[in-house]
Amino acid sequence: MGKRIVIALGGNALGGTLDEQAAAVKNTARAIADLIEENHEVIVAHGNGPQVGMIQKAMTALHKQEPEKYGLCPLSVCAAMSQGYIGFDLQKALRDELARRGIKKNVATVLTQIEVDKEDPAFSNPSKPIGTYVTKQEADRLIRERGFTFAEDAGRGVRRVVPSPRPVSIVELDVIRRLMEDGEVVIACGGGGIPVVRSDQGSYEGVEAIIDKDFASARLAEEIHADYLIILTAVEKVAVNFGKPNQRWLNSMDIEEAEAYIREGQFAPGSMLPKVQAAIQFASSAKGRNALITLLEKAKEGIAGSTGTIIHV
Amino acid sequence: MGKRIVIALGGNALGGTLDEQAAAVKNTARAIADLIEENHEVIVAHGNGPQVGMIQKAMTALHKQEPEKYGLCPLSVCAAMSQGYIGFDLQKALRDELARRGIKKNVATVLTQIEVDKEDPAFSNPSKPIGTYVTKQEADRLIRERGFTFAEDAGRGVRRVVPSPRPVSIVELDVIRRLMEDGEVVIACGGGGIPVVRSDQGSYEGVEAIIDKDFASARLAEEIHADYLIILTAVEKVAVNFGKPNQRWLNSMDIEEAEAYIREGQFAPGSMLPKVQAAIQFASSAKGRNALITLLEKAKEGIAGSTGTIIHV
Repeated sequence: MGKRIVIALGGNALGGTLDEQAAAVKNTARAIADLIEENHEVIVAHGNGPQVGMIQKAMTALHKQEPEKYGLCPLSVCAAMSQGYIGFDLQKALRDELARRGIKKNVATVLTQIEVDKEDPAFSNPSKPIGTYVTKQEADRLIRERGFTFAEDAGRGVRRVVPSPRPVSIVELDVIRRLMEDGEVVIACGGGGIPVVRSDQGSYEGVEAIIDKDFASARLAEEIHADYLIILTAVEKVAVNFGKPNQRWLNSMDIEEAEAYIREGQFAPGSMLPKVQAAIQFASSAKGRNALITLLEKAKEGIAGSTGTIIHV
Repeated sequence: MGKRIVIALGGNALGGTLDEQAAAVKNTARAIADLIEENHEVIVAHGNGPQVGMIQKAMTALHKQEPEKYGLCPLSVCAAMSQGYIGFDLQKALRDELARRGIKKNVATVLTQIEVDKEDPAFSNPSKPIGTYVTKQEADRLIRERGFTFAEDAGRGVRRVVPSPRPVSIVELDVIRRLMEDGEVVIACGGGGIPVVRSDQGSYEGVEAIIDKDFASARLAEEIHADYLIILTAVEKVAVNFGKPNQRWLNSMDIEEAEAYIREGQFAPGSMLPKVQAAIQFASSAKGRNALITLLEKAKEGIAGSTGTIIHV
């Protein structure tokens, strides 16, 4: 009996340029098709760091070229474009891979908005770097004219930072669920979803933010009652004392262990930390739910129990 | 008893900039909600002329800014981005409008690829202008380096022209049909669909082309067995002898009349002509199928039979 699985693909694994992505999605498609071939129900969520960076740079270059006509492109719109860009390459590669294996399934990308809370503390503490490095003068101008926030980034210069609020609800959830229940392979919540807030009139409005794709994927996995959330990363297993002589790879952690490691500062913020936090969120949401952190190529073995790090109740 | 309707929205009606589109979709959403409120099943297809132009200009500006890193963006990828961009604004506005009226329906944008034939004669006769005007020198370089085709455009300079092949099949048709049958409002085939061709190995590949959105919409309407194809335009009715003293507005045309008018050269190429051709294609595909050409604001009255031009068998 197959499992219901949400896969959270990293944006970095998809490559930073058009050519890199076109090549990367082929590997990705093979690993996902491996799971589908084992009769698992799979929904694919993905990040968009390099891709939304590319689109935002392009739209900013256009704004500079024709400032009278084109304003600065809102981040929500850039995220929507990135869902189209990544979804196209991914659904094409996945459909081809399934056809090659004689698996008759449709693949659909559902453009996904995710509601965040206007009062989320992230909005008063923007922390996620986006876009290119700018000069001090340019930063000052954008702070004055747009209210943007900038931060020093690892000694490499000044870069815009935006809020990274937690996902509250997935606007297109019903549609995603229905397609999955009909046996289709769904690509959804790309780039952590297009961030929207509810206005006082009840309508949704795009907002300048980027939702972490691991938290968005965890939310999606909860809502569709997944058995597994697979968070893909650049290592086969999670380690404690990473890079030190006493480094130790973990086959599994229960919630208490994972939380203790977090308190010890074992996981790097902006890297392994949000993955472990998202894994905890999903695993603790109901009985029988497991999160798996591993490499793309090891996803199938990980679900079979032979590698990766499982986070469980 | 409601009708099954495909609406083909013009890209021009959505506005050429971010701000224009955000405003335009509100009107669009009201007109579409009017039809849904009358219990019609509605699928929304749309053009993307100004939008894909904006994205292509932005991606070209990025390419010029960082040529080592970013190649020229394929048109298929620009089309995919435009589906994300337009779909986001449209589904947000439509969901809000339906919620305001107390109509409980989901709205979903399905990223849509449309297969075209590699042997389509359009590929040896590129005719659709795209992007900005370029200098003779720049055109010569792009012809040499990329094999692009350029043409004089209405005395305003040299502009790239691309093939506009006919749509053969809609790759994500099953998904679109299923969501529609489940009662959801679907946005699909944006910008005429992302153009793909089938390679010799059977996989789909993006192709440098733009599919006319009226032909894509007609194809979609045929495939989902629609009762009506509504092609929206800037006039309430189609006219013969347009702009002349003997101009005459048409309430309806049967296929033979429409074809006779085409032979007389009554409809402008690139404007009313493809709309009438797409209308003929749909109306002649099976009994009981009608195409309606009218203004967005008159769509509801047109379906009720009181305005617009009906094309029928």
